[in-house]
Order: sequence, then C-alpha cells, then structure tokens
Amino acid sequence: MRGVSRGKRESKNNNKVLPHTHRFDQRTNRLENLQNYRIVEFQSKPNTLILPKHSDADYVLVVLNGRATITIVNPDRRQAYNLEYGDALRIPAGSTSYILNPDDNQKLRVVKLAIPINNPGYFYDFYPSSTKDQQSYFSGFSRNTLEATFNTRYEEIQRILLGNEDEQEYEEQRRGQEQSQQDEGVIVKVSREQIQELTKYAQSSSGKDKPSQSGPFNLRSNEPIYSNKYGNFYEITPDRNPQVQDLDISLTFTEINEGALLLPHYNSKAIFIVVVGEGNGKYELVGIRDQQRQQDEQEEEQEEVRRYSARLSEGDIFVIPAGYPISVNASSNLRLLGFGINAYENQRNFLAGSEDNVIRQLDREVKELTFPGSAEDIERLIENQQQSYFANALPQQQQQSEKEGRRGRRGPISSILSSLY
Amino acid sequence: MRGVSRGKRESKNNNKVLPHTHRFDQRTNRLENLQNYRIVEFQSKPNTLILPKHSDADYVLVVLNGRATITIVNPDRRQAYNLEYGDALRIPAGSTSYILNPDDNQKLRVVKLAIPINNPGYFYDFYPSSTKDQQSYFSGFSRNTLEATFNTRYEEIQRILLGNEDEQEYEEQRRGQEQSQQDEGVIVKVSREQIQELTKYAQSSSGKDKPSQSGPFNLRSNEPIYSNKYGNFYEITPDRNPQVQDLDISLTFTEINEGALLLPHYNSKAIFIVVVGEGNGKYELVGIRDQQRQQDEQEEEQEEVRRYSARLSEGDIFVIPAGYPISVNASSNLRLLGFGINAYENQRNFLAGSEDNVIRQLDREVKELTFPGSAEDIERLIENQQQSYFANALPQQQQQSEKEGRRGRRGPISSILSSLY
Amino acid sequence: MRGVSRGKRESKNNNKVLPHTHRFDQRTNRLENLQNYRIVEFQSKPNTLILPKHSDADYVLVVLNGRATITIVNPDRRQAYNLEYGDALRIPAGSTSYILNPDDNQKLRVVKLAIPINNPGYFYDFYPSSTKDQQSYFSGFSRNTLEATFNTRYEEIQRILLGNEDEQEYEEQRRGQEQSQQDEGVIVKVSREQIQELTKYAQSSSGKDKPSQSGPFNLRSNEPIYSNKYGNFYEITPDRNPQVQDLDISLTFTEINEGALLLPHYNSKAIFIVVVGEGNGKYELVGIRDQQRQQDEQEEEQEEVRRYSARLSEGDIFVIPAGYPISVNASSNLRLLGFGINAYENQRNFLAGSEDNVIRQLDREVKELTFPGSAEDIERLIENQQQSYFANALPQQQQQSEKEGRRGRRGPISSILSSLY
Repeated sequence: MRGVSRGKRESKNNNKVLPHTHRFDQRTNRLENLQNYRIVEFQSKPNTLILPKHSDADYVLVVLNGRATITIVNPDRRQAYNLEYGDALRIPAGSTSYILNPDDNQKLRVVKLAIPINNPGYFYDFYPSSTKDQQSYFSGFSRNTLEATFNTRYEEIQRILLGNEDEQEYEEQRRGQEQSQQDEGVIVKVSREQIQELTKYAQSSSGKDKPSQSGPFNLRSNEPIYSNKYGNFYEITPDRNPQVQDLDISLTFTEINEGALLLPHYNSKAIFIVVVGEGNGKYELVGIRDQQRQQDEQEEEQEEVRRYSARLSEGDIFVIPAGYPISVNASSNLRLLGFGINAYENQRNFLAGSEDNVIRQLDREVKELTFPGSAEDIERLIENQQQSYFANALPQQQQQSEKEGRRGRRGPISSILSSLY
Repeated sequence: MRGVSRGKRESKNNNKVLPHTHRFDQRTNRLENLQNYRIVEFQSKPNTLILPKHSDADYVLVVLNGRATITIVNPDRRQAYNLEYGDALRIPAGSTSYILNPDDNQKLRVVKLAIPINNPGYFYDFYPSSTKDQQSYFSGFSRNTLEATFNTRYEEIQRILLGNEDEQEYEEQRRGQEQSQQDEGVIVKVSREQIQELTKYAQSSSGKDKPSQSGPFNLRSNEPIYSNKYGNFYEITPDRNPQVQDLDISLTFTEINEGALLLPHYNSKAIFIVVVGEGNGKYELVGIRDQQRQQDEQEEEQEEVRRYSARLSEGDIFVIPAGYPISVNASSNLRLLGFGINAYENQRNFLAGSEDNVIRQLDREVKELTFPGSAEDIERLIENQQQSYFANALPQQQQQSEKEGRRGRRGPISSILSSLY
Repeated sequence: MRGVSRGKRESKNNNKVLPHTHRFDQRTNRLENLQNYRIVEFQSKPNTLILPKHSDADYVLVVLNGRATITIVNPDRRQAYNLEYGDALRIPAGSTSYILNPDDNQKLRVVKLAIPINNPGYFYDFYPSSTKDQQSYFSGFSRNTLEATFNTRYEEIQRILLGNEDEQEYEEQRRGQEQSQQDEGVIVKVSREQIQELTKYAQSSSGKDKPSQSGPFNLRSNEPIYSNKYGNFYEITPDRNPQVQDLDISLTFTEINEGALLLPHYNSKAIFIVVVGEGNGKYELVGIRDQQRQQDEQEEEQEEVRRYSARLSEGDIFVIPAGYPISVNASSNLRLLGFGINAYENQRNFLAGSEDNVIRQLDREVKELTFPGSAEDIERLIENQQQSYFANALPQQQQQSEKEGRRGRRGPISSILSSLY
C-alpha cells in the first residue's frame, strides 16, 4: 500500500515461470484482512506448455498479453479453454491444470489472484513431473508404495515416471534432439502437432451471454459501467458471476486514456488489488495518519490526512483499501486490472463530477456548514466539472490561462505535463 | 470482560464528539473472536450537526437519549431518518452520513457497534471538511489533481473547499457572527431554519410493521420475549431483520426494574457486548478458571469456577461470553443495550425459574445423580421460584424472615439492599 | 501433521473422562486454518453416566465403540438419542447434554470434533454439579443471588444443589451404600432402573432415510462411495446433511482390509483430521519443503518434496492438508474416522487406479511432455493397476517374482510385509 511494488522481474532464463508472490500485509499494519490474498504474475514464450500441477490455493487468472489454452483436469474428465486478452478463468483449489501458449509469436502474460486454503498467505505447487526446478510428488512415496500403486516393478516406474539421474544420459540419447524435461524446467517447448491436439476441443469465452459456471469470461464483455471519451471502466461483480461469487471477488478493468484522470472516489467496502497491464501514470491515495495508538494523552491533536502517491508502469501493483479516496491519471494509455476483495455490494463514491458524486448529494445547508465557501460558491465549484468518472487531467482553465498567458507562474504545457506525472 | 469499562468520558469541550473505542480482546485472552468489534459512544448538544464523514467500518447505531436526524448519502441519492429513544439504524461501511440533534433541549446520546473492514480492530473517519479536529481528505490530493478534478484554479478550491489559515481572518469577518468551522470542530451549531430543512423529508421508524431494508427500527417495537412485573426483555434477531442479518448481529434491550433480578442464564452461542443505558445495578458472571495451559502435569486438579462481578452505572460496558452463566440485578431502574455477536440461532438457557429452565428439564434420575439432594428436594427447590426470567432480587423468604425477625444474622432491609448492590 | 499424535491415554482412574485435546496448529506452521478445530476422545465404563454439562464449542461426535444414549436438553424440551458404532451426532454449542453408557459389558468410546466459539482453540465445560473434578457453576454466584434466584435460604441451596464439605460425611451416611458425587467425578454409576428410565424415549439413527435436522446418523448408512474387495470408503458431505452443513464439515469412514492399500490421492480443498478407530497400518503423506521464506536469493534452487510417514494404531490421529498426496496401507483391518474441514465441494483426485485418476485424464501429448517415458510406456504403466481406490498392498508382480524366485534381492513374503509396515 505504501508505494508500489513491481509485479514482474527479469530472469536469466526467459522461458521460466516467474512467480512473484506479493504479501501485502507485510508492508502495512492496516490491511490484515488482505493477508490471505496473493498476486502471482508469470509469462511464457510462444509454443510452450507449463507442465501439469495442482496447488493448495484457489486461483482467479486473467490473460494480460497473448493467448492461452488452459486445461483443467478433474478425476473423471478434462476440459480445455481458449483465453485471449482480458479473459478471466477460475481454477478451483486442487485442480490439476496446464497452460499452453499456442501462439507462434506472442508471449503469454498472465496475472492471478491466489487464495491459499491450508494456511493464510502460503501455498505450494504440486507437480507430477520431476524437472530441474522441482521434484515429482510421486517421488515422495516409498518404493513399496509405488510398486503396489502401479502394480509394477520400481525400476520400471522410475524409468517411465520419475526419471533417474544415472539414466539421464541414456534418456537424452533415446529421445534424440528432444530436450529432456529435467533440463527444461516446468515450461517445455511443444510442436505444432501437439498444439493442434491440445487445442482441438478447447472452449472459448462465452462473450455477452450469461456467465457460465466454469468457462472463461471476458472482463470487457459487458458494457462499461463508466465511459466517456477519457476512459472506460468495466466490472464483473460477485452477484453476477458464479465463478467469483463464493470467493466474494470482483474484477475490474480500467482504461484511462492518455492525459485523462480517473476522478477522486472511494470504494465503500471492497479492498482492491490493482495490477498495471500497460501504460504509465500516477495514483494519489488518501489515508488517515495512524495516531490512535501513541496518542492517548494528546486527545486534542488534529487527525491528519496522508497522501500515498507513486508513478505507475507495466507490472506495478498497488492496493486501494476500502474507504480511502483515490485518483489515477494517465501519461500514456493506461490499462489497470483490479481484484476486489470483500466485493459484494461494494459501491464507488465519487467526490467530484456530474454523476455518482456524494459531495453533490449533501444537503445545501450541510454543504455550507461543511465547507468555508457559501452554498452558491460550493455548488458552482461542483458544476465546474461537467464530466463524470473520467475527466481531462489538464484542466480547461489551465489550458486557457496558458493560452492567454495570464498565469505567469506556470510554464508551457510540456512542463505542466511533467509536473502531473 | 474482567470487570467493567466506562463507555463515556468527560471532555473540556462539551460540544465535541467523544468516541471512546473499546478493544475487548486486549483485556482477556479468551475472546479472540470478539477482536473485530468495537463500541463507540458519543453525545451532541441540542441544535447541532456532526459534519459529514465516512468510515472503513460497518456501524449499527442506537439512540439512548434524545432525538437524531441521520442522513445517509449515497452516490445517487440521500435519505434522512428520524430516530428516537431505542431506535437503531445500520450505517453501511463507506456510507457518507451526518447526524443532526434537532432537539432544542435534550442532548443526543448514541452508542454504536463498529465492525472494521480493512483491519480487525482499527478504523478511521474520513471527513470532506477541515476543522480544528481533523483535515479534509480533499487536502490529501495534490494541487494539480484538485485543479483537474474541479476544473478550477487551486486558489478558488482552497477558498471554497479547504479553507486557508491566512484567509481565516477574512473568512470570519465575511461570515459575520457565524463561527468558522475550523474553530468549531466536527460538531457545529445549526439554526432553526437549517434544522427545518434537514428534517423536512426524514423518515421515521417503521413501528410494528415488518422491518425495512434500510430505515430505523425500534428495539421495543415488538412484544418483549420475556416480561413480568420485574422487567422486560426485547430482542431483534438476525433472522428477523435484514439490516443485521449479514452481520449476524442481534440487538437486545433489557429493562430491569428497581429491586429486580434477571435470573441466572447463559447464551448458547452468542457473545454479548452490553452497554448500560441508565440506572444502577450489579452483574455476576461465572467463568471457568483457565488452568489448561500451565497444568499439563497436574491432571487431577479440580477445575475451578470464577466469578466476575461488578457494579454497573450509566455508560458502563461489559461482555458476556457464550456459555458463561450471568445474572444482573437492579438497584434502580436499569436499562441495558446488548449487541449479540454470532447471534444466529442463539438460545438463552435459564438456570432457574418457571420457564426455559434447563435444570428443570433434566431427567428426574439425572437430577438426583447430579446434585447431592434427593429428587424431591431438587424439584421442590426449583418450584420455589415461581417467576420466570425476572424475579425479586430480595427473596420473599428473606423478606418474611426479616418481618418475623427470625434470622438474627440479617440486619434491616436497607442493609440487605446494600449487600446486594 | 508431522508424524502422529496419540488420541488416547491411560488414566489412574479408569472411570474418568479422558479428554485429550489436540492443537494441530502448534505442530506446524502450515495449517493455520485448522487452529479453531480440536479433537477430543473419551471413554466410559458400562452402566455409567457422564453428568450434564454445556461447552462453549460446537461438537460433532462419533461412537467408535459400544453404545451411548445421549440426552440433549433445551430450555423447553429434552430429547434422548441412542447411538451405536459409527453413529454421529451434532451437539450444538451451549446445549446442556449428558451421555449414558447403557451397556452391561462394553465400554463406550467416543471421538468428537470441537469447534470453539469464544476463542479459537480453547473451550471449557460448564457443569451444574460439583464433583471432585470440577465445581458447579452455581457456586460461582454469590449467596445473595442464589437466595433470590431460588427464593430459598442459602443453607438449603447448599444442601440440595452445591454440597458442602462439612456436610459430606452426613451425606454419605444418608445415602447409604451409594457413592457421593464428590467422590465419583463427572462419570457416575447408574442402576438398571435408571438406565431404563433414561433410554425409554430415546430415538435411534434414522438409517437410510434422508438425514434429520437433529438426530443421529450412521456414517455407513449410505452406499460407500468407493468399494472393492480391499476396502470401503463412506462419506457424509455437508451438502447432504443439515447437521454438518453450516459447519462445512464432512465425515468419512474408511475400511481398509488387511494387506490392502488406499491408493495415492489428494483432496482438492478439504483438510482432513483422521482418527484411527481400530487396526494397524501406515500412511505416507507428500508435502513440499518450505523453502519460500529463507530462499529469496537462491531462486534457482529446486523445490523438494518431503515424505511424512508413520505407523498407525488405534487412537492415533493425523492430519491430511488439502492438496497433499497421501496413501494408507493396512497391516491388519484398519478403520479410519475422518473429519473434513472446509469440505463443501471437496474432490478426491486419485493418482493411480482405474477410476477418478487425474493422471490418466492428462492429454496423451501432455503425458509424454510430463514424464520421461513414452506415451505408450505411461499408458501401459497406468493400465497395470486395474483396481480403483483400494488395491493389494503387496503387488502381484512382487508376489509372482517371489514365487518364481527371480528377484534375488527380495526376501520371503514375511520380510516384505515387515518392510511395508
């Protein structure tokens, strides 16, 4: 919450899964209710497969670049799904799944929200395969148990399932030019034929139809809830989507156009974890200074507001606690993916603009009692912003005064822009 | 839980909000499940308004003295409600609201249960206004963001919305006799005309009708669940009221008449936080001594009961853990407001009296096996108390023996009363 | 989780309740979500009664030996239930109840899952009676409160309800050969006549009918979900039984025959606490080595699997975290009682065998990419195990090779068996 964390990192091996797990609760003492949520971001190269695994966590996954074919395996069936940019999918805890990047050119970039089930904040991946990155869970069973399980001699199980350091050389010879899994790690190259097989029965996002129980859904399939020439705001709420209902999660997708401002607002009850999909910008978040604890004897001291502010670029992650006013402006087209925790019946309260503006809704008498200006002053001030939700980050008045050269203390537009971002 | 905490405190400035936040979990290691609940009590003078704000907590609020007009502002509408003595209202987390005391003479006294949403046990108030007690959240945004937000020059925003220390003198002159907000704090005086406007469309408690989704409801609007000449017990349960349903809260209002006893009983699963509305009395609460932790080697040691007991007066707060037997007696007419946590399907089990008495329900054979007396003795003992729920705190037998002067070790009634309380 | 804990212990006084409370969360840092669950096991002799009490915990109780008549007392009624081997019953938090062993010969053995309501992991028993093991909660009230409560002089209350050390001698004389409660503890002997009275209106398990709201239900009343000649697996899931629904608990009963293996599998989302009802065997549980915390700089290190393994005998308890593969084999007929936490929509994923085998469900191409063997090798290996769920712990191939004497490094069957267990 204090500042921004980077959701991406460079790796020596470009072909490797890059899970960067964020523990939000360690960075502040104010967000304990967030401690059971983690964000994982990973990428895979064209024509690769992330090998099958299961985890002790629920996942809600969103594709932010490229295409994916994700297969979820249940004890009695398997189902493959095609996902494109903006598609989301829930992978229930314990489901064995594998993720294919079927594209010939584009890298696949996925962000997922993880909700651990054994222990808040910690979860593990369980792989049936052994590679240089991890061991097969089969290797955790004793020789005797494996022989009884497969009704087969251990040496055979080892050759077929587990691999064997001694046999590795032989293995690699046997499989010719194909790279052994132990060398490749958990992301492996796949051939065109394999991709064809793996995508043959894959099901795609349902589009504008009513959301399905289990398939992918696109964050932008419904009309944006807020939209004008400065931006669009899409939201999937838990009451409208069975896949996120029991998790009480909402998903938002925000497009803020270059030079636009998402007007100051606060969420009534949801805590949002936001990932920057692309673009650059800046957010300002307003909290209350925590003086409750050390302040028992100075009761008359004024409560202070505190601004948390940071520049944003692709892969950054930030948290918006419930009730905290926030604004975001975009220095280039900005795309934000948001996961809302505790989202059921959350309400966005805007503090300016024409619609959904709580300040505008105050009684005229209360406006006057609340602010130093007269009621006329205040209502005129509110009317000055005729846009709703999104507005110009470079206000008209400034633009005009620049044109007219009347406000000497301002420099040219370019320097104003640089002060904004 | 150990003893009583005072829910009120004196202030130098009588016109100030007096939030006294209670952290119940810090006072005992037995009530961890209560850690996310806080009680706040505040008062305001006649003809005053508590300025608009929102909080990162859900509130259930009850008026214990005077009258209030509470306005809840949503992004697209506002609704004012009139509340009188015993009226309750839920203010959902993040709702901007303001509280008017429209009365010319009576002070307003309100108790609220707060359920924080970002972090267990901590919550903050967010005010759009700046006063000497707190800063406006608008002042947390940068100059550039405010100019873009209001499409207005910063100096103008400062004059109308934020106030300015330098301009304050000018301000006060301009507004003549009216006191500036910066001086007044978050409770401000309001005129008769302003009160008339603010209460014009206010909606009142629905009375005995079925409870509404959002309006106030009176704790005594239904028949008391327990009632006799010694007292009345009212309860609003989560299954009967949509406003407290998702919080799993019940609300109780107990009237114990002077000289009466609320008979020993325990709650099957709810934890109650009780606030003394008025009157004086005493409670006795029976727990089990915590010997589990240091006692591994002395397994044969007897478990001991422990009495938690304290006198009660207006503004006191105490907690009744689930399963702990409790009795309360009144030395003057006692009014108790209770918030029940985890209240769905809670059951009150009385340990004496004619009805709802679990001891009476024991099999005759089990009574004899349980207690030293014969079955006849036990059943006669139970029959001696012919009242249910509430009884005379000064038992008939004692009164008689006093009259007849047969029990020499007792003094006159007055001294008995003093030993009771 | 690491190893096995013993759920039983010897006592000097065989007639005493033997609650052995297990705090699972103290033994590992991985199972925080289990911290509010405790297992209690107790036994009582033929023709005895465990005296009435209530607790600040919800219970789900299962009879593992003998018979019980359990009476649950509510404020306005009481109901007795007959329970036999494998019968389960929920005792809601705060319900006063007593447990009779009506059998003339068999000891009663009960295991219960406790879910505390005031504080995670701690709960207390509240007894109306005083014995040498504990004090009556009535003795926690003051003399004055008791007199007003029972409208009776204190000396009489003491004689009939509380007992009195001074009067004890007299008491014992008065009651002749009958033992006083203060001597007996909370389990007391009952006569044939008393048993007859206490069981007269008792209601029995509903059998195969649809589960009732409150009566006992047998874990084996429905068809086993997995069954063959090697074993049976019964499960009561929260969606099918109203008594465990709001607790989100499932109950399993597993019968593994001598020499059989419950095939490796994992639970998708439930955490299971398993109690050994009878028999001997061994389990193998596969987790991931926790290297996440100290490993930030050694990113390339391989994740390691870790085997948790232990022998099992009657009264042992172990925990199966969600997602962790497990196998169990039986050296004598093994009976396991399981309590599943977070059980709604849990799915068992088998890793071998003919049905419900997730490995079998992998795409043929993915099988080849995942394991070192060829697709043919892998599918043949999977086909080798023709059983589902349960199989021979001594694989056919080993048996054959023993017979044929071809595998010199193996000894005779007996030594193989000893290496298995």
